Amino acid sequence: MTRILYTLCGADESRPFSPHCWKVVLALHHKGLDFIEKPTPFTQIPALEDSFSKTVPILRDGNELVRDSFDIALYLEEKYPDRPTLFGGEGGKALSRFVERFSQNIVHPAVAGIAIADIHDMLGETDQVYFRSSREKALGKTLEEMRAGREDAVVAFAAKLEPVRQTLRYQEFLGGDGPLYADYILFGALQWMRVTAGAKVFTADDPVGLWFERCLDLYNGAGRSVTAA
Amino acid sequence: MTRILYTLCGADESRPFSPHCWKVVLALHHKGLDFIEKPTPFTQIPALEDSFSKTVPILRDGNELVRDSFDIALYLEEKYPDRPTLFGGEGGKALSRFVERFSQNIVHPAVAGIAIADIHDMLGETDQVYFRSSREKALGKTLEEMRAGREDAVVAFAAKLEPVRQTLRYQEFLGGDGPLYADYILFGALQWMRVTAGAKVFTADDPVGLWFERCLDLYNGAGRSVTAA
Repeated sequence: MTRILYTLCGADESRPFSPHCWKVVLALHHKGLDFIEKPTPFTQIPALEDSFSKTVPILRDGNELVRDSFDIALYLEEKYPDRPTLFGGEGGKALSRFVERFSQNIVHPAVAGIAIADIHDMLGETDQVYFRSSREKALGKTLEEMRAGREDAVVAFAAKLEPVRQTLRYQEFLGGDGPLYADYILFGALQWMRVTAGAKVFTADDPVGLWFERCLDLYNGAGRSVTAA
Repeated sequence: MTRILYTLCGADESRPFSPHCWKVVLALHHKGLDFIEKPTPFTQIPALEDSFSKTVPILRDGNELVRDSFDIALYLEEKYPDRPTLFGGEGGKALSRFVERFSQNIVHPAVAGIAIADIHDMLGETDQVYFRSSREKALGKTLEEMRAGREDAVVAFAAKLEPVRQTLRYQEFLGGDGPLYADYILFGALQWMRVTAGAKVFTADDPVGLWFERCLDLYNGAGRSVTAA
């Protein structure tokens, strides 16, 4: 059976960086499912799989196509119930959505504040035009203005993870003794920054940084296989 | 069997307001367990149950004594596994800790910014002395300085709940179709503000405010039975 995960890349295919795609990469490893990753530039995504989706990740699982990272995780949990669970039950499924919304609302803007101009610089020329136009409109700032705020954004970053830091007083992973999809959600955001900007945002003994290192080690270092910027 | 929940009150016993105690009140209702609530002023807590704990909630469940709201919830889940689940599995248990840390780190300071002087005013004289001294030291501000910032704190409040608001796009409760302990965690914080300050922090159509109203209705209006300040 052919299992393909379409992900996002810039000019260099070997450095996929999308937070949402990284969530699914680790979710597939978690389930022990083989897959072929096909990193795709922004402007080529709409043509994939007969225009199935404007965004990645897209999972082709044999004859089935699924889009959206959370929906893919739900699909995998339902389709492969005998593999290790991504949610640890219905309560974990519901609360993973809250972790997603925390990451999207608090962590993603913080990453963008650091990495947005670096992301632009990683793209091919066609993608750069699309990216500058769409992001400057969304942010209400030029990429150059965002770049000028980078150092302040680096300094402010770690404090935004305080609820995560406090959770790690009680357990090794957000999911408990081992990682669940909730960990991959947050991992995706930090891996996005690591691959695109490589900014040092945590002190050496920060529990969040140490948790991120544990996540980079998972599944034979799947996350670590793409080096930091 | 005698089941007693010691909670916190000011000069008026009929208006218990502690966020941590309200979490447990709803958790006991969720499990369908009868209990007697004994609201206790701050400075009388250390004498309860042979000085078992410096803080409430304290649960006496027959011969067992348990302190700390999260530990009480875990205890109830283990002790009464055949009653409705508070966590919806191990994943929900682990991620409820993240919700607790979000509430403690983001929501509690926001409530304190609105309600701290109002809480002081609800206390008996002996408690007022203790409360002013301990809180002014912890906050690095006088209660009068906190009161002066009240209106700004009211205006800033709703935005801090954005990850919750976005989660409610997908489901009726944080716990999914129905409430779980994670809902009671956040309910506790908002009920604390409702009973002590009564500030109007949500617009009429705010999904977070509507969710809070749903929580007030639970268990024959257990939360609503104490009127807003």
